[in-house]
Parts: sequence; C-alpha cells; structure tokens
Amino acid sequence: MAQAPEELGAERTSPAFIFPDLDRFNAFSDGVFAIAITLLVLDIPVPPQSEPLVPALVEQWPDFLGYFMSFAFIGSIWLSHASLTRLMKVGDTVAYGANLVLLLFVGLLPFATSLMVKHLSGPDTGIAVALYGMNVLLASLTLSVLIRYVARNPYLLSEDVANEMLNRVFRKRWISIGVNAVGLGVALIFPLLAVALYLAQTILLIIFPLVALRGYREY
Amino acid sequence: MAQAPEELGAERTSPAFIFPDLDRFNAFSDGVFAIAITLLVLDIPVPPQSEPLVPALVEQWPDFLGYFMSFAFIGSIWLSHASLTRLMKVGDTVAYGANLVLLLFVGLLPFATSLMVKHLSGPDTGIAVALYGMNVLLASLTLSVLIRYVARNPYLLSEDVANEMLNRVFRKRWISIGVNAVGLGVALIFPLLAVALYLAQTILLIIFPLVALRGYREY
Amino acid sequence: MAQAPEELGAERTSPAFIFPDLDRFNAFSDGVFAIAITLLVLDIPVPPQSEPLVPALVEQWPDFLGYFMSFAFIGSIWLSHASLTRLMKVGDTVAYGANLVLLLFVGLLPFATSLMVKHLSGPDTGIAVALYGMNVLLASLTLSVLIRYVARNPYLLSEDVANEMLNRVFRKRWISIGVNAVGLGVALIFPLLAVALYLAQTILLIIFPLVALRGYREY
Amino acid sequence: MAQAPEELGAERTSPAFIFPDLDRFNAFSDGVFAIAITLLVLDIPVPPQSEPLVPALVEQWPDFLGYFMSFAFIGSIWLSHASLTRLMKVGDTVAYGANLVLLLFVGLLPFATSLMVKHLSGPDTGIAVALYGMNVLLASLTLSVLIRYVARNPYLLSEDVANEMLNRVFRKRWISIGVNAVGLGVALIFPLLAVALYLAQTILLIIFPLVALRGYREY
Repeated sequence: MAQAPEELGAERTSPAFIFPDLDRFNAFSDGVFAIAITLLVLDIPVPPQSEPLVPALVEQWPDFLGYFMSFAFIGSIWLSHASLTRLMKVGDTVAYGANLVLLLFVGLLPFATSLMVKHLSGPDTGIAVALYGMNVLLASLTLSVLIRYVARNPYLLSEDVANEMLNRVFRKRWISIGVNAVGLGVALIFPLLAVALYLAQTILLIIFPLVALRGYREY
Repeated sequence: MAQAPEELGAERTSPAFIFPDLDRFNAFSDGVFAIAITLLVLDIPVPPQSEPLVPALVEQWPDFLGYFMSFAFIGSIWLSHASLTRLMKVGDTVAYGANLVLLLFVGLLPFATSLMVKHLSGPDTGIAVALYGMNVLLASLTLSVLIRYVARNPYLLSEDVANEMLNRVFRKRWISIGVNAVGLGVALIFPLLAVALYLAQTILLIIFPLVALRGYREY
Repeated sequence: MAQAPEELGAERTSPAFIFPDLDRFNAFSDGVFAIAITLLVLDIPVPPQSEPLVPALVEQWPDFLGYFMSFAFIGSIWLSHASLTRLMKVGDTVAYGANLVLLLFVGLLPFATSLMVKHLSGPDTGIAVALYGMNVLLASLTLSVLIRYVARNPYLLSEDVANEMLNRVFRKRWISIGVNAVGLGVALIFPLLAVALYLAQTILLIIFPLVALRGYREY
Repeated sequence: MAQAPEELGAERTSPAFIFPDLDRFNAFSDGVFAIAITLLVLDIPVPPQSEPLVPALVEQWPDFLGYFMSFAFIGSIWLSHASLTRLMKVGDTVAYGANLVLLLFVGLLPFATSLMVKHLSGPDTGIAVALYGMNVLLASLTLSVLIRYVARNPYLLSEDVANEMLNRVFRKRWISIGVNAVGLGVALIFPLLAVALYLAQTILLIIFPLVALRGYREY
C-alpha cells in the first residue's frame, strides 16, 4: 500500500461513499449561490413613467432593503461554505446530501425575500417577517449541521487541526442562530424590530467568518 | 513521448472524437443543473397584500410541493451525474451528445413542474401529472443510456472496475424507471396517487445513489 | 501546474496581453452558455386551467419548437467552443474580446427565439424568422472568426497540429454559415421553409463537430 | 499543483484569514458576472403580434442600447477582474469582502439598466440616467478599491512585479472613473449626452485593459 503521504487519510474508513474531490460539489454549490444571489434583482420592480421617479423609488425602499439583506446573507453563507470546503479534502454522500438541503433553503430565499418585502406594510407583516426569518434560520442551521458533520469525520478533512477549528466555528455560530431564533419571536410582535435585528445580524455574519477564522494563520 | 501509465488508456481506440478531460463537460452540466434547480423558485408566486397571508400560502401548497419534488429530483440526477463523471477519465462526442439530451430534459423541468402545479386541481390533473412524469422519465432514461454507454466504453473510465460498478448502478436504476413508468399510467386515473408515488420515488432517488455506490469503497 | 517542454511555446511572441490559462475564459463562457440555454424554458407559458390542456399545448407547438431549436443551437455552439478551447493553451485579449462578442449574440438568443415563436403566425412571420436567423448567423460567424484567429496564432495552441485542424473546421463551417445565409433570404418569402432549414441545420450542427473533428484521433 | 519556490510568499504575514487558492472566489464571481450579463436579455420585451414588427422594434431601441451597454460594461469589469485574479496567488477575507460588494453592484445592474431604458423618454430621464451612472460608478470604484488593496498586499500576488503593474492599472482607471463622474453631472442636465458618454466610455473600457496590460509581456 505504498501511498503518497497525503493519501494516508484514505485508510480511515467512512460510513458512506466518498467522492475523491470536491470539484463538482463546489461548482454546483457556487452555481446555486450565484444564481440565487443574482435572481434577487428580479424582485425589484421598475416604477412606470407615469409616476415621479424619485418618490416612487423612495417608496419602494423595502425592495432595496430586501435585496441588500438577502445578498449579504447569501454572501455570508457562501463565505462560510467556501471556508468550510477549503478545509475539506473529500466529500461523502452525507455531506453531499446535507449540502443539497442547504441549497434548497438558499434557493428558496428569493421567494422569502419577496414575501417579506411585499408584506412589510399591511396586515400580515409579522408573519411575513417570521417566515423570512425561518428560511434564514433553516439555512443557517443546515450549514451548522454540515460543519459539525465534517468536523466529526476527519477523513473528510485536509488537515488534522481543521476539526478543532471547525468545532470552534460551529460553537460560535450558535450566537448568530440564537439571534435569529429570538428574531423569529420578535417578528410576530414587532416585525420591523426583527428586520433591524436581521439586518444587524446579516452584517455581523459577514464580519463573523473573518474574525472566527483569523486564528488559523497561527498554525 | 514517455507517458505516465494511466495515459496508456489513450491507445484503446474510440469510435468518436475524445475530449481529453471533463472540465467543461462538468462545468456546463453543473451550470444547467444549478440554474434549472434555482429557476424553480420563480414559479412560486407571492400572495398579494389583499389576501390573508397564511390561508393564501396554505392554499398554494402545490407550489411548494412542486419546488421540493423537482429540487429533489434535479438534485438526485446531479448526484448520479457527479458519481458517474467521477468514474470517467475522458468524454467523447457520443457522451457529450447524450449529456446535452439529458440537460434538455432537465432544463424543461421548471416548465413541467409549473404545468403540474397549476393543474393539480382542475379538469386536466391527470394529463398534467402524466406530462410531468414523462419529463422525469425521459430525463431518467437518458441518464441510464449515458451510464450504459460509459460503462460499455472502458477508454472513458478512470478505473478498470468502474464499468462493473456502473453496470450494477444501471441495473438498479430500472427499479426507479419502472416505478416512474407505472406512475405514468396511474397518473391518468389517480393523479394524486401518482404524485405521492413520484414524491416517494424522488426521496428514494436521493437515497439510491448512496446505497448503490456504497460497495465501491470495498475495492 | 508543473509546466514542462510544451511550455516552450511561451517564447513565441504575441501582439496582445496573454492570459496564462483558460480557467476563467471557460468558466465565464460555460456560465453564459448554461444560463442562456436554461432561460429558454421561461418563454414557454403554462396554459391556464380554464382551457382544455391538450389542445392548448398542441396549439403552442412553436414554443416547444423554439425551445428545441435554440437549445440545440446553443448546445452545438458550446460543443464547438469546448472543442476549440481544448486545443488552446492560453488566451489573449483579442480572443477574450471576440469571445465576449460571441456571448453577446448567444445571450440575445432567448429574445430572438421568443420573437420568432410569438410571430410564427401573424403578418410579420418573415421578418421575425429572418431576425432569428440573423442572430444565429452572427453567433455562428463570430465563432468562425474566433476559430480563425486562434488557428492563425500558434502561441495560443496546445499542439502544433491543432492549427491545421482548426483551419479544416473553419472551412467546413462555411457550409453551415452558407445554409444560414440562404435561410435569411428564404425567411422573408417562405418563413416556415426557413424554419425547417434552420431546424435541419441545427441538427447538422450537432452532428457536424463529431464528424469534423473525428480525424483528430489519427494524429 | 506542484508548489515550488514561489510558495515562499506564504511566509509573509497577512492581517486577515487567507484562502489558499482562488478557485471558489473565481467560480462564484464568474457565476454572478455570467448570470447578471445573461439576465439583461429578460428586460427586452417581444412586441405583440398586433403591432407591425419593424416599427415596434425600432421604437424600442433603448432596450437594445441598454442590453449592449450593460453587456459591454459587465464584460469589461469581468475582463479586468480576470486580469486581476490572474496576478493573484491567494485571497484573504478583505479581498473576498470587497469582491462581494463589487458583485452586489454588478447584480444590481440589470435593474438600473431597465430603470434607465424605461425612463429614457419621459419627465425623469435625467434622474434615471444619473442613477444608472451611479451604479456603474460604484461598481467601477469598488473594483479600483479591490485592485488597490491587492496591489498593496504583496502576499496576495503571484509575482513580484505584479503590484507595480496593478498600481499602473489603478492609476489609469481614474480616467474612466473621472469620465463616469462627469457623466453623472451631465446626466441631470443633458441625459442623452450622458448616455453617449457612457456608451463611448463602455467601449473604451473594453479596449482599455488590452492597452493598459499590454506592457506586461515585456517582463
């Protein structure tokens, strides 16, 4: 069994079929992330010529808010996803399956964004915001499950220290998931406060991976 | 022209032009899969403010069912496709052509999904479900043809045992194709039963490649 | 990316900035091809519940014809494009620019398809078919220009014999371009004959690269 | 990916988490660029059968102008982006973050294009053109920030001379940004002149990287 050093990991057994590289895992995921993030723009309507343009655009501020929030959220999920796969060596069918579930929730986000935006005024604002929050929460939880699964299965990892690091990321993610869960409850009573919370959280989610993973270069 | 051992396979003759790698085959396929799966969300309409939100969303359950079913189906086809190309070394024009036909049916699925969903109640439910089933069946059959073609042309494969494995996958796929064909007949008489069958089958299709390919790591 | 003897070609001078690999050239092109081909499905409307489904679908046969024709055409262009870049080693800015022009015409095709399909009956069928034909012709011509440019600049090629082969492909492409140009004239007088011609040609365009490039494995 | 002497750069310290390759950075960016550029076609409506086709198409010249301008602009941004990453070895979180901001503005461009096109006649032409110009300007500025950041952080670069070159590109980009800023002011008074300016600038932006980077092969 003369193997090149990095191949030794292959001896560790896996409970599932292993894909020997992540090329298509990454390409397909990047495709879905990129499309979902770019489809968001289709939900911003162009005001007709009959209305004065500036007031019409100001009035549709929820459309721009929704575009920004969901762009930032999908961007942050993508950033975490890229940080995860950069520590992975191979994928197995469980990781592929969990990833498909993550992408299912990411793919649904343009709908949830449009739902929240179109009901940000009106009688059902609370429910609309809560449904958006639920979509974000489910995507976030699935990503955590994926990170946890990879961290616990070292044959998937490219480096031995990667699992410690992923476990640390996994624990820190509970903060953002907690904020999100609180937001769900708040949404039903004070919808706009929940939106502010999601917005703050989204921006934090972008900064989060930068801070959380910063210690890595010390290895 | 000293060639590395794995290059020797190039000496085996092919009846068609050979592409020496699968980079663009995979990239283009991943693109179409990712776009088709993400376009599905465009078919879920957002209820207007004038209607109470929760009942309106409950009433449009077929939209969510269609999104889930077709997402899972395209996801499972992608998973099988990625499992196939991971066993391939090169592609030839026949494989490229068969792949384009597969992608043609995958690309049509957002239409077929919308057709089924919008006619799930109404006078033509049976025909709409059967047409959806036919689209799924044609995609499934084309994938089987592609798998069979690759299995029979060992110069396309990266490993000698891969063709045995692909033949085993090919035979097991008949189960899902049979279920699908039965669904087509059922659809015309009991459309909702066929939908249940497709749903069950779709979930099986996700689990199927995990089980079917599991034996591989024993080699 | 250990680079060996074939890298000597880098000594040949180029009149333009050279990109040392084709990764992003291919990824961006594959993206545009995949999206344009998948957007075609958005132009097939779903008949409303109020109409009997089968006659309604039969009546919208031009939509399905348009989907098939343009899918096959974009697929064939992609196949030729992948065959071209597989013979290329690097790209320069002229090749990148010509490629952007090609993608501009490919990206316009969903519009031209919809235009032809919606005017296949009505007073302006001839003009609509001719405009579709013009879009196809311009894409085809730009691809020929790109092939010719690459064939004439051997520092772009991965193999010395590739330019002979590309010149042969370039010459054979005149047949399909000629058919297309004839179709343009025919379209204005007998639009449906032109559609039949385009359909025949599209199918030939798929088979064409298989035949044209077949000689390659003899080297 | 045999890694040799140039890997020594990894010893240089970075203030942020480093991604050891640019695969997903490029794939995700290429995806967003390709989708944004291909979505532009969805904003060109097909005239109904009831209107004479040729006059109807002539009347909607702003749609074609918008398609061409934004296709060329996104194409030129992509070309500059590909030229940049070809000089990069790795990415860090700051580069990833700045890139996401760039993609946010690129993703918004189909909306801004549609806004400009639909208001090119009417009372608010000036504001619509200025908003389009602002979107283009913000994308252009973000790209300049990204280029500057990369040029100043040599551990991101693949070659030692690359930062000199990027600094030169950065300085030359001020010309195009200046033209754009002037266009913003002009737009409010002479909107169509600003459109002409943007058109001229867009075409220059395509030719610009070819000229600016030409000196590179002298190294």
